[in-house]
Amino acid sequence: MQRERALLAVAERLVADAPRIIAANAPDVAAARAAGLAPALVDRLVLDEKRIAGMAKAMREVAALPDPIGAMEDVSRRPNGLQVGKQRIPLGVILIVYESRPNVTTDAFALCLRAGNAVILRGGSESARSNAALGQVIAAGLEDAALPGAACQVVGSTERGLVEELLKREDEIDLCIPRGGEGLIRFVAERARMPVIKHYKGVCHVFVDEHADLTVALRICENAKVSRPGVCNACETILVHEAIAERFVPLLSARFAGLGVEIRGDERTRALGGERIVPASEADWSTEYLALIVSVRVIASFDEAIAHIEKYGSQHTEAIVTGDWATARRFVDECMSSTVVVNASTRFGDGGELGLGAEIGISTTKIHAYGPMGARELTTTKFVVLGDGQVRT
Amino acid sequence: MQRERALLAVAERLVADAPRIIAANAPDVAAARAAGLAPALVDRLVLDEKRIAGMAKAMREVAALPDPIGAMEDVSRRPNGLQVGKQRIPLGVILIVYESRPNVTTDAFALCLRAGNAVILRGGSESARSNAALGQVIAAGLEDAALPGAACQVVGSTERGLVEELLKREDEIDLCIPRGGEGLIRFVAERARMPVIKHYKGVCHVFVDEHADLTVALRICENAKVSRPGVCNACETILVHEAIAERFVPLLSARFAGLGVEIRGDERTRALGGERIVPASEADWSTEYLALIVSVRVIASFDEAIAHIEKYGSQHTEAIVTGDWATARRFVDECMSSTVVVNASTRFGDGGELGLGAEIGISTTKIHAYGPMGARELTTTKFVVLGDGQVRT
Repeated sequence: MQRERALLAVAERLVADAPRIIAANAPDVAAARAAGLAPALVDRLVLDEKRIAGMAKAMREVAALPDPIGAMEDVSRRPNGLQVGKQRIPLGVILIVYESRPNVTTDAFALCLRAGNAVILRGGSESARSNAALGQVIAAGLEDAALPGAACQVVGSTERGLVEELLKREDEIDLCIPRGGEGLIRFVAERARMPVIKHYKGVCHVFVDEHADLTVALRICENAKVSRPGVCNACETILVHEAIAERFVPLLSARFAGLGVEIRGDERTRALGGERIVPASEADWSTEYLALIVSVRVIASFDEAIAHIEKYGSQHTEAIVTGDWATARRFVDECMSSTVVVNASTRFGDGGELGLGAEIGISTTKIHAYGPMGARELTTTKFVVLGDGQVRT
Repeated sequence: MQRERALLAVAERLVADAPRIIAANAPDVAAARAAGLAPALVDRLVLDEKRIAGMAKAMREVAALPDPIGAMEDVSRRPNGLQVGKQRIPLGVILIVYESRPNVTTDAFALCLRAGNAVILRGGSESARSNAALGQVIAAGLEDAALPGAACQVVGSTERGLVEELLKREDEIDLCIPRGGEGLIRFVAERARMPVIKHYKGVCHVFVDEHADLTVALRICENAKVSRPGVCNACETILVHEAIAERFVPLLSARFAGLGVEIRGDERTRALGGERIVPASEADWSTEYLALIVSVRVIASFDEAIAHIEKYGSQHTEAIVTGDWATARRFVDECMSSTVVVNASTRFGDGGELGLGAEIGISTTKIHAYGPMGARELTTTKFVVLGDGQVRT
């Protein structure tokens, strides 16, 4: 199939053109170093043979995903004999505005094309030369499969004014997805005239219920906080039911001390967890640390946990640890975040882990898509009505 | 079930309170007459026992619809044993801004509540007293079922400034649906900070292909134009393939002459259809007449028909009349309107006719919903992840 062939052609060209891509990447990296960018950020910018091979591999994986386009859903026959169904179709033209990592260029293109969309990619100025080189590779791969190279356009200019102009083109662009820091996302959301799908941040919670198995709870808290603290599905706040706080908080405090995790606790947590626990301020409850820091609060009831998550959370991913059936059922129903987890780590709040195959982002707004978005979330449906001359009476 | 009970309680109260509702409606009607509103518009405003019974019946029908909330979709087990699925949940708070007909007040409330949403209703100033009375009935019915009366709020003030204030409350309101004329919809779309689902107008096409059965084509054209000219799924433009134009245009012209339909045609249509055909201007091709007027154009090919619809259409509903399999297949795939019809009238572009049970409106923008929207389109899904202590490696 044509779109699949194009993705495979781009993957092949990525590997073949790696030297040219690396050459284009070098001045981006040098400029970032010269500008004094933090080493972690400079590292995210670097393209080498291994990373390019990884980008090609990801593209082949997207090519292997099932094609969402053309599927018919909810087909039924009406009493008048009409056959009615919904056919899955592309959204149209998608604008992605993003920062830093050049792999977003190839990943976002791949998922948009898998779902039949054209895409306009506008990356950060710090990776402009790398993105331009990747754009050439993509265009050539599209043309290998007899698709127009312009189905993926990498915006060359890095002027902010140009983004503002693009965000006004609601007649030509069907959807905008900003990816990056909160500043970028707010900039886009405030100016876009077309619909925007966004998530600002991930303040994810683990709620250790009174019926929790403490060993399981410790394992999940550790994994949710420590396995990769810099990502949006890492846990930022642990809520502990007061009925088990006396047993659990000292265990947690000791475990996290050993892992180098700073705990910021409310008064009761501090009383139970020892002197190493820093007092939490009101601002801590809504902070996405993206670091080895966690806030911990002792709460008096299930309802208080739900209320805390609703007030301070970000509708990303929340987990409960409990052995009680009724409590688990209530959490699934009453927690309104986009991913609700029972007895597993918040780190599963991720498109790949949930079986979407690949992910364009995580929506924490409810319209169109809520939670991790895969290829299917980059489509819509139209009604198809098949008749034999029916008219309406 | 509680929401169902509330809808039935409101239906019962509507009938019981009919005299009070009619009394509240009277000054609205009198004011509209005094202001010189067109008789058709005044008529839309009038509530009598029969219309109120109709509103109660519609509410009972919505109560009988399947409840979309709580359904689990796409449930699968991941290799690590996690069970993953998507649970259907309400959108939250929906703001409906509408004009004129007071039955929108009860219809919109019913569908929003069926899908578990709270709703803020802001109708036109010309029906303010009627809407306030209906709001009281709704609140009482909600409380009969032990639901908060405030789950449906009829905005009493008719100041435009108040709507502007509401449209800024993106943190409290999840979705806005404007219903009414193009002016109202543009007013809302330009000011709303939350997502807006809208359709501006319905410029629907019937394409009479070269392989059309002319009897079927005439029947469909007549039904699409004449059965109810004032609604958005009525046909405004007929495209005729040149290979059958010589036979079809005279038949169409004669049929529409008998029905009192004015035809505005391009040059070739005028040459074939006789003197009664008025010349069409460029503006005619994108006009929603909502009257016994139709524009007719002879086109040279299937591609030209698709291009015409894309250029002048409104992404609402288009029909093809054809006996050719390949042409029908191409139309279904290549026509990108929200409802695509083969060999039936455009008048089927309607939620009730498509089996949605009831309709909150028709979206001609692709995000979230495209085409007629029922109760299910007023919901979203959250991911639910059920585990036994899984952590991410």
